[in-house]
Amino acid sequence: MRKTLLGELSAEFAGTMILILFGVGVVAQVVTSPDGSLGDHDSIAWAWGLGVTLGVYVAARLSGAHLNPAVTIALAAFKGFEWRKVLPYCLAQFLGAFVAALIVRVVYADAIAKVDPGHTIKTQGIFSTLPGNGLDGIGIPTAFLDQIVGTAILIFVIFALTTAVNNPPLANLGPVVVGLLVVAIGMAWGTNAGYAINPARDFGPRVASLITGYSTAMYDQHGNLYFWLPIVAPIVGGLIGGGLFILLIERYLPKDEEMLPTPPVSEPRANT
Amino acid sequence: MRKTLLGELSAEFAGTMILILFGVGVVAQVVTSPDGSLGDHDSIAWAWGLGVTLGVYVAARLSGAHLNPAVTIALAAFKGFEWRKVLPYCLAQFLGAFVAALIVRVVYADAIAKVDPGHTIKTQGIFSTLPGNGLDGIGIPTAFLDQIVGTAILIFVIFALTTAVNNPPLANLGPVVVGLLVVAIGMAWGTNAGYAINPARDFGPRVASLITGYSTAMYDQHGNLYFWLPIVAPIVGGLIGGGLFILLIERYLPKDEEMLPTPPVSEPRANT
Amino acid sequence: MRKTLLGELSAEFAGTMILILFGVGVVAQVVTSPDGSLGDHDSIAWAWGLGVTLGVYVAARLSGAHLNPAVTIALAAFKGFEWRKVLPYCLAQFLGAFVAALIVRVVYADAIAKVDPGHTIKTQGIFSTLPGNGLDGIGIPTAFLDQIVGTAILIFVIFALTTAVNNPPLANLGPVVVGLLVVAIGMAWGTNAGYAINPARDFGPRVASLITGYSTAMYDQHGNLYFWLPIVAPIVGGLIGGGLFILLIERYLPKDEEMLPTPPVSEPRANT
Amino acid sequence: MRKTLLGELSAEFAGTMILILFGVGVVAQVVTSPDGSLGDHDSIAWAWGLGVTLGVYVAARLSGAHLNPAVTIALAAFKGFEWRKVLPYCLAQFLGAFVAALIVRVVYADAIAKVDPGHTIKTQGIFSTLPGNGLDGIGIPTAFLDQIVGTAILIFVIFALTTAVNNPPLANLGPVVVGLLVVAIGMAWGTNAGYAINPARDFGPRVASLITGYSTAMYDQHGNLYFWLPIVAPIVGGLIGGGLFILLIERYLPKDEEMLPTPPVSEPRANT
Repeated sequence: MRKTLLGELSAEFAGTMILILFGVGVVAQVVTSPDGSLGDHDSIAWAWGLGVTLGVYVAARLSGAHLNPAVTIALAAFKGFEWRKVLPYCLAQFLGAFVAALIVRVVYADAIAKVDPGHTIKTQGIFSTLPGNGLDGIGIPTAFLDQIVGTAILIFVIFALTTAVNNPPLANLGPVVVGLLVVAIGMAWGTNAGYAINPARDFGPRVASLITGYSTAMYDQHGNLYFWLPIVAPIVGGLIGGGLFILLIERYLPKDEEMLPTPPVSEPRANT
Repeated sequence: MRKTLLGELSAEFAGTMILILFGVGVVAQVVTSPDGSLGDHDSIAWAWGLGVTLGVYVAARLSGAHLNPAVTIALAAFKGFEWRKVLPYCLAQFLGAFVAALIVRVVYADAIAKVDPGHTIKTQGIFSTLPGNGLDGIGIPTAFLDQIVGTAILIFVIFALTTAVNNPPLANLGPVVVGLLVVAIGMAWGTNAGYAINPARDFGPRVASLITGYSTAMYDQHGNLYFWLPIVAPIVGGLIGGGLFILLIERYLPKDEEMLPTPPVSEPRANT
Repeated sequence: MRKTLLGELSAEFAGTMILILFGVGVVAQVVTSPDGSLGDHDSIAWAWGLGVTLGVYVAARLSGAHLNPAVTIALAAFKGFEWRKVLPYCLAQFLGAFVAALIVRVVYADAIAKVDPGHTIKTQGIFSTLPGNGLDGIGIPTAFLDQIVGTAILIFVIFALTTAVNNPPLANLGPVVVGLLVVAIGMAWGTNAGYAINPARDFGPRVASLITGYSTAMYDQHGNLYFWLPIVAPIVGGLIGGGLFILLIERYLPKDEEMLPTPPVSEPRANT
Repeated sequence: MRKTLLGELSAEFAGTMILILFGVGVVAQVVTSPDGSLGDHDSIAWAWGLGVTLGVYVAARLSGAHLNPAVTIALAAFKGFEWRKVLPYCLAQFLGAFVAALIVRVVYADAIAKVDPGHTIKTQGIFSTLPGNGLDGIGIPTAFLDQIVGTAILIFVIFALTTAVNNPPLANLGPVVVGLLVVAIGMAWGTNAGYAINPARDFGPRVASLITGYSTAMYDQHGNLYFWLPIVAPIVGGLIGGGLFILLIERYLPKDEEMLPTPPVSEPRANT
């Protein structure tokens, strides 16, 4: 057996790196392009989601492709993932996100320098999230609640898509649907806090920007320390979402050995 | 057997809740974002459709994932779904939509207050539909007809995608195609009445908005009582669409025991 | 056996009707919406393509889902489809497109009347195609060539996606990829002649508009008779595309009984 | 056996031709349409990616569908593809891209003449890439680095999606996910050098434009010889990406005969 913890951590590192190369990359492209000529919020939502799909395909065989501490912790709490692996997984995810953001920072250095030579809050959003995406009027409590709800939705649906007896997608196409889930979260839950929904996705690039010229990277647009929010709230939200899935769906599902009978061929299965 | 009616209703509740968290959520994001910077009608169409896909994956194993009274009633009329379950299913769908809309209402409260502090018709469209999406020039008869046609298309194609002998998508990917169906309806049939095509989708969030500050939620932009239209017309349209599927397709399909021979491998099956 | 010619024709009628309900519907929505608030060219490309996917799922089991005379004729020329069925299939496709366009005409009557009360060339493009989409500068020879090339691409790739020994998509998901093909044609080959690429798609709605107030429906924006071009050129283009597929791909493919060995599991299959 | 090198080369020619008919076609449509009325950067990203999907389905059975010298060389370096076939494959890819670009050049001749009668740098970007997509401020070293990174991402993920023991997509739907990969690269890695990531994609159309009126086709907007960069950098980047996949993922994967046990049904596989 060559499947070691080292391989799992390498996969989490690589999968999260691929995710962030697309996610932070697309925001860099949109923010630095003149008049939105190279993208818009729609392309941001799509490329983040597709980045998830591709990152999951990179890592799933070796590590299960969590790519997100909120996922790792929810799996440990509800699905039997070993607690002793939680911290190493989270560190590998953080490192993958950090390295990917550094690569974007270097390759987009010219483009960023053109639109924001001072490396201010104006392009901070390329790397990490802000309340109201940097606009006024969204309070910190709202951003906190938003990250709880957004991550609860994420984990609830991931559990629905990965619990074998709940009829998930087959043909190993689950990663495509998980990516579409993140596309939809970006379109519907991106207003209040930029849909971090992943502590590694936010903190890794935040540190990368801090050490490359963004001196206010840990703060929001009003000068309040903010880095903690997209770490804490997603973890809380993930636990709530996972618990709700158990409560509303999983406890009604059959155990493996007593599989529900599949509907007879002649009786259409509604909507599926 | 743990598959009880309670489980089915819990699944309809949860699946419809997920659907509306995305559907009402994306309209909230687009309507409250400055200059469309966080989305546009394209993202509305995509997130509604993806919300259907994800809601169906949540609920399909336990309940069949109707998520829509028009679907439930059409299945009872044409496909043998038990009539005694119709009302409980519809109530669970309404409740799921209602709770989801309340969550959006709370999390987007800051953002809504910024653009429409009086909670007027201007942001009513986040929650429920209006004739002509609130613009003038579309009559009530047109809106009624539109909802009949839109829902007839929905049910006709759902039946095509879920009748086993009609060669639906395999690998449990039907929910993805059903979601794409709703994406396309949003793009092509959203002008006259905002494509409710689902009484629970419209009435649940409408009540949620009514009790949270939208005093005119039951009316259209001209002060006419309107809430009934996106309930009645979709039910009528669903029955018409289901009937047309029987008439145009299903009666020509083989019964199970006399399956059509599949084309030989060497003879390409056109377009499929 | 209940699979009769009548069933096949009913399926071609219904499948083409679904296709056009989305295709003509989305153009109606975009053209009549103020400032593009309900869609843009991207949504036109997507809804046309998704309409193809959904129409194919409706009809494929019974008729093979040609939905397009250019497909039917190319299949007869190259793939053994019976010539005696060609004319009935084409008539059913035309009728389906005609009925669907009438439905759009009626349901969008209010919206069309708002932006083009005289039913001029301004909204003619909802129903049928024009050289240069109604703009000046594109000659008739260019439009003719464009329709040959666009339909040749369509048929070439459809043959690639439906020739069993060429490794098409499995799990009955070919219709999704055929829809994506039409999405891409709309994005890349829509400039010169509005990507009819289907005589029924163009002529059916053209007649529907002619008899409902568009007196110049058979002409282009310069008053030249035009209806023939999106009929003749796609048929020619389809035959060219089909022939090129035989020439460049099919003659190198194995016959059924001498299937190519699949690559061993350990040898990655590049790009697939 | 009819699978000969000639068939493989014919498939590489045809598949790359289809890819470029969509890729160069969509840029021609967007660049020549007034006010972006027929597309935008989003449609460019989608049609390039869908062009990859469709080109791969055309060619995969016969040749493996490399469609890209950077892919061919990386497969030879890391996956045992025969070195003696590398040059013929690259020539076939170049020829396919060249012929496709000529077709676009002819069919879009009217439209190009309208917006850029002198065939200048303004529409050069239809055919081949430029540093910063023709805008100032992006240096040649940045463009070179960008093409290394973009192609490294491409090959890294292609290897992840085509290494059988890494659990790639099944049901022969890998080509769809490879297309989505290119969609995402266009959205996130298109700023600095127009995401050539494929020497044949860039040089074939560049030559086609050179011989049809674009006298400066081999140069960038500052008059520097540029054609070499989208050839050299993608090849280097592909080798780096392939090597990193071996390093971070493949060496931890099981050999065929010692497949990892699949998780038991009752243990959800996170994110997949």
